[in-house]
Amino acid sequence: MTDLADLTATEAARRLREGDLSASDLTEALLDRIAAQEPRLRAFAWLDPALARRRAAGLDAARAAGRATGPLHGLALGVKDVLDTADQPAQYGSSIWAGHRPRSDAACVALARRAGAVILGKTVTTEFATRHPGPTANPVNPAHTPGGSSSGSAAGTAAGFFHAGFGTQTAGSVIRPAAYCGAVGFKPSFGTLHRAGMKVMSESLDTIGVITRTVGDAALVMAGLTGGEFGSPEAKPGRAPRLALVWGPTADLAAPETRALLERVAAAAARAGARVEVLEAPPALAAGLVAHPVVMNGESAEALAWELDHASAQISPVLREAMARGRAHGPAAIAAGRAAFAAARAAFAGMIAGYDAILTPSAPGEAPEGLGWTGDPAFNALWTLLHVPCVTVPVGAGPKGLPLGVQVVGGFGADAATLAWAEWVRQAAG
Amino acid sequence: MTDLADLTATEAARRLREGDLSASDLTEALLDRIAAQEPRLRAFAWLDPALARRRAAGLDAARAAGRATGPLHGLALGVKDVLDTADQPAQYGSSIWAGHRPRSDAACVALARRAGAVILGKTVTTEFATRHPGPTANPVNPAHTPGGSSSGSAAGTAAGFFHAGFGTQTAGSVIRPAAYCGAVGFKPSFGTLHRAGMKVMSESLDTIGVITRTVGDAALVMAGLTGGEFGSPEAKPGRAPRLALVWGPTADLAAPETRALLERVAAAAARAGARVEVLEAPPALAAGLVAHPVVMNGESAEALAWELDHASAQISPVLREAMARGRAHGPAAIAAGRAAFAAARAAFAGMIAGYDAILTPSAPGEAPEGLGWTGDPAFNALWTLLHVPCVTVPVGAGPKGLPLGVQVVGGFGADAATLAWAEWVRQAAG
Repeated sequence: MTDLADLTATEAARRLREGDLSASDLTEALLDRIAAQEPRLRAFAWLDPALARRRAAGLDAARAAGRATGPLHGLALGVKDVLDTADQPAQYGSSIWAGHRPRSDAACVALARRAGAVILGKTVTTEFATRHPGPTANPVNPAHTPGGSSSGSAAGTAAGFFHAGFGTQTAGSVIRPAAYCGAVGFKPSFGTLHRAGMKVMSESLDTIGVITRTVGDAALVMAGLTGGEFGSPEAKPGRAPRLALVWGPTADLAAPETRALLERVAAAAARAGARVEVLEAPPALAAGLVAHPVVMNGESAEALAWELDHASAQISPVLREAMARGRAHGPAAIAAGRAAFAAARAAFAGMIAGYDAILTPSAPGEAPEGLGWTGDPAFNALWTLLHVPCVTVPVGAGPKGLPLGVQVVGGFGADAATLAWAEWVRQAAG
Repeated sequence: MTDLADLTATEAARRLREGDLSASDLTEALLDRIAAQEPRLRAFAWLDPALARRRAAGLDAARAAGRATGPLHGLALGVKDVLDTADQPAQYGSSIWAGHRPRSDAACVALARRAGAVILGKTVTTEFATRHPGPTANPVNPAHTPGGSSSGSAAGTAAGFFHAGFGTQTAGSVIRPAAYCGAVGFKPSFGTLHRAGMKVMSESLDTIGVITRTVGDAALVMAGLTGGEFGSPEAKPGRAPRLALVWGPTADLAAPETRALLERVAAAAARAGARVEVLEAPPALAAGLVAHPVVMNGESAEALAWELDHASAQISPVLREAMARGRAHGPAAIAAGRAAFAAARAAFAGMIAGYDAILTPSAPGEAPEGLGWTGDPAFNALWTLLHVPCVTVPVGAGPKGLPLGVQVVGGFGADAATLAWAEWVRQAAG
């Protein structure tokens, strides 16, 4: 018998819809899985099983009474702890916010509840979604980082604690941890999910996304949240894609296993009918990437003005140092950085015009050993500043047996197509 | 003897710097003014004179002890009540948030305190900075609206309650109330002031700005907040500007007094040496304007997802209706609206290339009579979606004796130049 905690969101949604499974039974299975593995993984910043049980029972009662239920009825979500929740603390990965109880839900959390989801708990984030890590371990090998900053959402999704985890990405905080944990990560086009009630750091970059176990689940959850069209990625497209293999400005940082992986995936895609060309990124993209830390740290230092002035002793040295660099840049450099982003976006629109999607690494290699560093977002920051949809799909494993992912990137607004081609690539890679 | 409450920010800053005035004496003069006029104007959503006095005394003590003080040392700010304050409630103009006490300051408020400002109080906003008005009256004639949504910041600045008021603009919420009250309003380029800790409604549009009594004060306050370069608008430029008179897609809504005003100002500018040409807005701008309510209401309905689901009875009928329209649009229409904005911005960059600034109405006419409606943002929404700097300067009065303003608009990022040309226009108009 399959453990109910292993059902994908898509499978669980079908069984819930058909009356073959109750939200309560599904939630119990997830809570059992959590009870067994959370001591080892530490994915949660806050977990209140009684609250989840009450919500599931309420959803079952609503359905039994014939009341309308939403598209995410009974599915479980983990909420990264940079997002506000009215019924659970929001502590942003910082002792400065210990015990903080927001009055309202973040917009995306409210939309999830409206759609019928069970908010299973708050998931561990690095400090304000920056570098200083939380305690979460990689479910594949707990001696390794799950990546960050969406550490708990990635680990918890991969471990079967919930069907999807909300993540946020400023550099590589959705795609990288999803790849490290063997999950699917989806960073939609900038602005797809409203950031109201998020602890926003960089207004120009921060993007809310989801981590799921399958590409189809990502589409299901995004459509359920927004009412938008994210397609059916598992439906076979009528043709093979035109793909560009792009190493990008950080090519030298790819580990040998990543080089080998991308070449293997490109060859497999070609065998499956794709046209695959190696493409150089235009110089404007490299220039945008150079500006990324300037804008990220500069805007984040503004966002944390209150914390810096009232509680700087509670800020980690690594973040204090980044904020000092951010403040040193000054507004003219930040404005110039934003202009470099805009130029990079314009150049990218031309670059992708002849292709359906781009194939590029999700991360330099496997998840690093140890929990002190969540890894390098070097293969993510560029696509974040471009505001374009990115999907990481799990494909194989590295030399230490940890998961590897391949990243598929599309044009701005082409979220459904990007999901579909990501799933196509995953299947082609076998 | 001049009432100290009548000093501009620039004058007060000079006297504070020269040791000729203490922050406490200045604050007392403002509190006296407030005590006399607030019952009539109702500009404050929250006022705690003891808190302001303690802050001023602390600033005086710091200066007496030789400790470094900031560029806004001793100046008083009113903070629109959609911005969080750690020491005062933030109620967003809605009973849903009655008594809400944020843990932290909004970024712009923290920056103001870092620069040495006294936060004098929270100023009245319309409901969530939308249409449903607060109780504030126009200081020039309290039978008329001060405009909105930054009602209290506009009325309070004009009345001498504080040197500058924070405003926010999604359609016309900084420029219009400033014009109605005879003040200067400055909406900087999008992204200049970080929105962390603001009750953001439309992520694509919401822009934090300031309302002051002079253009020089706006530059002083913005430079003090950001460390950026906003110039010295009162310094005489070495040449006269090239100006485009643009009526825009809403030309038909200009009242006769506004038509006459713009023509008079254009003629005066020409006499003072400006080249003034009447310019048609390209069709992409009109298309952007058509998309404005779609994006504004669509994004705002996402932002208020929690309020709509948990407290809809406490939302005004006018806002509930706008949010229903916003939700009806759906994500594809909102995304198309954002694309129309981007196209409008590209078209505008070409349009303004031959000019220093644009001359256009600040509002259809005088402030409407009554407090039930804060007036029409028809002459503001376009420039908001273009993300460009806008300044309204007071020039003359309308048939009922209420102030009129002229709006000067510049290219994206050209904030200092736009302020300088706005002041040039104001002086030329006499």
